[in-house]
Amino acid sequence: MHVVVPFSADRPKTRLADELSAAERRDFSEAMLSDVLDALDGVDRALDVTVLATGPVDTAGDATVEIDDRPLTTAVNDRLDTAPTAVVMADLALATPEPLADLLDSEADLAIAAGLGGGTNAFLARDTAFRVDYHGASYRDHLEIAGEEDLSVREVDSRLLAVDIDEPADLAELLLHGEGAATDWLVDAGFELDVGGGRVEVVRY
Amino acid sequence: MHVVVPFSADRPKTRLADELSAAERRDFSEAMLSDVLDALDGVDRALDVTVLATGPVDTAGDATVEIDDRPLTTAVNDRLDTAPTAVVMADLALATPEPLADLLDSEADLAIAAGLGGGTNAFLARDTAFRVDYHGASYRDHLEIAGEEDLSVREVDSRLLAVDIDEPADLAELLLHGEGAATDWLVDAGFELDVGGGRVEVVRY
Repeated sequence: MHVVVPFSADRPKTRLADELSAAERRDFSEAMLSDVLDALDGVDRALDVTVLATGPVDTAGDATVEIDDRPLTTAVNDRLDTAPTAVVMADLALATPEPLADLLDSEADLAIAAGLGGGTNAFLARDTAFRVDYHGASYRDHLEIAGEEDLSVREVDSRLLAVDIDEPADLAELLLHGEGAATDWLVDAGFELDVGGGRVEVVRY
Repeated sequence: MHVVVPFSADRPKTRLADELSAAERRDFSEAMLSDVLDALDGVDRALDVTVLATGPVDTAGDATVEIDDRPLTTAVNDRLDTAPTAVVMADLALATPEPLADLLDSEADLAIAAGLGGGTNAFLARDTAFRVDYHGASYRDHLEIAGEEDLSVREVDSRLLAVDIDEPADLAELLLHGEGAATDWLVDAGFELDVGGGRVEVVRY
């Protein structure tokens, strides 16, 4: 089965610009990519993994790297002429093999996992009629596209796939639950949990 | 099986004070409680549901209401002398029967579902040795308590149970994915999704 992992190599994670320098965001993004690839590697299924990157990538492990600097939607849609194809975002640093296997084992035309804030964090399309549109609240748009094409849909309910690391609050999720390279990177960079009132936050020392 | 739903009847949802008046927060909290009770009602299992409230509750449906104005940790621990007992938070307005059934069907000594930000949104204790401590990042503390008591643990991975509605960003999750009374309440109160850049937010008209 084809699995595509889109990766923004040039200007990753701009919403973390207050917390991390450009070089740090780049390193941190590669650490997250490596966690996602490790999680895919732990799925007991033969997967043909391609990192679809906008530029060169240092840490792709056994995955093939293909450079495609077109917009995300265009680049991904070009891959959906082959089915089944799964697309898994590169910033799902909490992803583990279990929810990924749940997604990849689905027999529906479209299995899809929502991200926090309305995004689409992972999907498996078993029908080439499915197309992506990552602009705006893509999860709802993707359900709508599936509806228009009469595709059967399974919504995969997973916190570990829902948390994409985009914003400062997401760093707390990594420090709370993460066990991989991205969590190690954050700890090495001086981030710690701040267990005050309400939700836990991060501070950097 | 006993299911306890703790509900703050007096000063609910203070972190939404910029968005909602005190009276609105009270109404909205009752709508969320009613969604949680509906989801429990949809679980195909005989459940004995008690709303453990700090004061009177209007919308408890078929559930028993017991008034207990002690701190949450104390009030819940008093219930854990009986096993199995499940505790499900009253603000899980996205909860559906499926992930709740997944939790309630677990055979582990402790089945537990994390909330965003380090909280514990739902658990099922099948061993009376388990005790709660809701102060701070309770999820990690609860795993630690289970470890100290040599309890087997199953971590239930569910986005629908992870999203508790505490903060403005959580309202967007409700408008994106919700289908119950709390979502209707928000829409009637004039909240709409704002699909701009990045994650979707809410605006009120």
